[in-house]
Amino acid sequence: MTEIAKEESTTRLEAISDGVFAVALTLLVLDIHVPQSDRGHLAGELLARLPHLFAFALSFLIVAFYWTAHHVLFNSIRRSNRLLLWVNCSHLFFVVLLPFSTGVLAEYRSEPIAVVVYGVNVIMCSLTLIALWIYVARNGLIVAHLSERSVRIVVYRLSVNPIVCVIALCVAFVSPHAATLLYLVTPIWYVFTGPAAAAGDSGFWPLQWRGKARNPRAGR
Amino acid sequence: MTEIAKEESTTRLEAISDGVFAVALTLLVLDIHVPQSDRGHLAGELLARLPHLFAFALSFLIVAFYWTAHHVLFNSIRRSNRLLLWVNCSHLFFVVLLPFSTGVLAEYRSEPIAVVVYGVNVIMCSLTLIALWIYVARNGLIVAHLSERSVRIVVYRLSVNPIVCVIALCVAFVSPHAATLLYLVTPIWYVFTGPAAAAGDSGFWPLQWRGKARNPRAGR
Amino acid sequence: MTEIAKEESTTRLEAISDGVFAVALTLLVLDIHVPQSDRGHLAGELLARLPHLFAFALSFLIVAFYWTAHHVLFNSIRRSNRLLLWVNCSHLFFVVLLPFSTGVLAEYRSEPIAVVVYGVNVIMCSLTLIALWIYVARNGLIVAHLSERSVRIVVYRLSVNPIVCVIALCVAFVSPHAATLLYLVTPIWYVFTGPAAAAGDSGFWPLQWRGKARNPRAGR
Amino acid sequence: MTEIAKEESTTRLEAISDGVFAVALTLLVLDIHVPQSDRGHLAGELLARLPHLFAFALSFLIVAFYWTAHHVLFNSIRRSNRLLLWVNCSHLFFVVLLPFSTGVLAEYRSEPIAVVVYGVNVIMCSLTLIALWIYVARNGLIVAHLSERSVRIVVYRLSVNPIVCVIALCVAFVSPHAATLLYLVTPIWYVFTGPAAAAGDSGFWPLQWRGKARNPRAGR
Repeated sequence: MTEIAKEESTTRLEAISDGVFAVALTLLVLDIHVPQSDRGHLAGELLARLPHLFAFALSFLIVAFYWTAHHVLFNSIRRSNRLLLWVNCSHLFFVVLLPFSTGVLAEYRSEPIAVVVYGVNVIMCSLTLIALWIYVARNGLIVAHLSERSVRIVVYRLSVNPIVCVIALCVAFVSPHAATLLYLVTPIWYVFTGPAAAAGDSGFWPLQWRGKARNPRAGR
Repeated sequence: MTEIAKEESTTRLEAISDGVFAVALTLLVLDIHVPQSDRGHLAGELLARLPHLFAFALSFLIVAFYWTAHHVLFNSIRRSNRLLLWVNCSHLFFVVLLPFSTGVLAEYRSEPIAVVVYGVNVIMCSLTLIALWIYVARNGLIVAHLSERSVRIVVYRLSVNPIVCVIALCVAFVSPHAATLLYLVTPIWYVFTGPAAAAGDSGFWPLQWRGKARNPRAGR
Repeated sequence: MTEIAKEESTTRLEAISDGVFAVALTLLVLDIHVPQSDRGHLAGELLARLPHLFAFALSFLIVAFYWTAHHVLFNSIRRSNRLLLWVNCSHLFFVVLLPFSTGVLAEYRSEPIAVVVYGVNVIMCSLTLIALWIYVARNGLIVAHLSERSVRIVVYRLSVNPIVCVIALCVAFVSPHAATLLYLVTPIWYVFTGPAAAAGDSGFWPLQWRGKARNPRAGR
Repeated sequence: MTEIAKEESTTRLEAISDGVFAVALTLLVLDIHVPQSDRGHLAGELLARLPHLFAFALSFLIVAFYWTAHHVLFNSIRRSNRLLLWVNCSHLFFVVLLPFSTGVLAEYRSEPIAVVVYGVNVIMCSLTLIALWIYVARNGLIVAHLSERSVRIVVYRLSVNPIVCVIALCVAFVSPHAATLLYLVTPIWYVFTGPAAAAGDSGFWPLQWRGKARNPRAGR
């Protein structure tokens, strides 16, 4: 941090983002309403909440995925500027909307429109994150040792999720439930992709199996 | 941080502010109630929520604007004292009230009083932030290299938003919707004003086109 | 941070506390329900919410007061241990309860019991904070240059609030509204007490007018 | 922090966890609904909320316990990697679910199913934390001076809570209230176990009475 002035540090940018992600993760649970004891048998009430629990788990996974991606991207971002604050805010905007879209999906799970609303929200989260990455790469805010090719691979990998979501949007009009399951595919793929030490070497995951020590730190 | 004692550091002041801003940003979404599936058609229910979605987007932009301004101001604030904690709290007080005012604006969007309540809330956010800036400048809590004139330009720029809001208050009695659109003007102007690298040079944005290397760091 | 091991650092203790304070400050606003447009005239609805707004402002001031006190106390706390985590949690427990007590006070403002519930909650916040301070002072977790007498003065000053609250509890049975106003007295006294630079010298406010340079840093 | 690259630092991992724990702690209070003044006498309404207040206190203690354990474990974790982010997220998932389970327990306190739902949630919190600890120990992410035996003792101690919970699950079908009280046993035991300075020596509590200076730092 010594060579980076306070004005250029990403500390507070990461702090507000962590705060928003943490609150968004926790607000998701508010949508699973606690059953009232005068309304009926508990077992039945809990079973009726299973779709909300599933939607909660799906959205928790998706928000956690965006937090992880945000975290890994910022490992390669060394400086900040004022426009980056706003690009980041546009990403947070769609993350904050996810609890609402999740509620709509849980309530109207057999209607294509609900699945489309949810999918568009997830796509916007991805597009704003890709825009953020392209912006920092174009404006020299990333670490010096990241090659052009590595930057592009990150864009390709971040594009997998919105592409799968567009497919899910089409599927939604045939089978809303199949489309909902499709939303699970990419986050789960991201969890298990690459070796465990991924974040530890090059600052971003794809570089590791293909980058071949292009990164001076990789030899550690 | 080496030359600044823990007592004078602004670290926790920025931490509590980031926390409050993050929660305020996220609570805004709670006001867009998820439609209940037994109440009617989803498309109609979603259309009925468009004004709430617009109010959410407007307030998200405004809270993000105050967070950005807070962030940029604190880049120039090097020391803290006990009264600054309280001046900062008075700013946070009006930020925390924004989700309530947003709800009122969304519910009663054609009533002048709702637009006035919202505008007064935004004006108070600006006035407390201006008070904070004048307080730190008068009490020598800012970085040494900031000139008198730079401090004054910051005050002028922060004053644009409350002045536009006062105009919106008058317009509200003729057309509440036009007044609501006026609230969007300043935040959007702030987003696109000045080059992208603004936060990176002098610690505050206006200095950059007018300050002419008055700032020792500007030559970097 | 160099001379203090990660195990003894108070960083995460302060982080979780800042988080809880930030959320508590923001949750208070949830109690001011947004009026529904089909329920009646906005002006009347807003007037009916004035007691809730007053209770919100009172509780915001009180939570901000405890955050400030927590912040100033931790400026003098240099090391942490596991029992301190729990003493701190007991303080946070009563801070987190304040939004509930605030709601009770706003709803039942003319009933002595509501005023008593609120007062007992505030008293418990103070007692747990005093316990925290005595614990760290007795166990050598504070900075070395703090004298016995300074430690005691802090206890005396922290005791003012619970004593005023006990008086308010008695007044509540005669006039609940007068008792509610009494709760405002100490926080406002704390805001204006001592010169602005207080937090900057000795790590705690009272030492400043009475401590007479007992503190090696005071000469700065 | 000098020898650990930003990619491997656990700073943001701890930040998001602190945020989630702070919000979870505070959301618990939302379940104690403020009585409405038109519904009846305040004293009676408050008495009717005592079970919710008890459930709130129980869950606050349990979430605080997991935060403390998380904090103490991470004192011994020196590096992070991408899979650790996800293991940590699975722990946070069950922590975030606790406010819901708490609400179910408070509403249906005499039904075995409610007690079972709550117990299973707590067991999952423990199992994911044990998995996290075993993962970091197996992958060399912990501090070097921690012996095999110390790592195992930590696992044993973390296992006490889920074992007591399994017993509580069986008891629940005989007496739900006795089972609920059983949930209190381990957190209270953890609070008072070991001397106050525990977190200060070896990075984890059990090592202290049995580790006998196996830890190079213990001599400080």
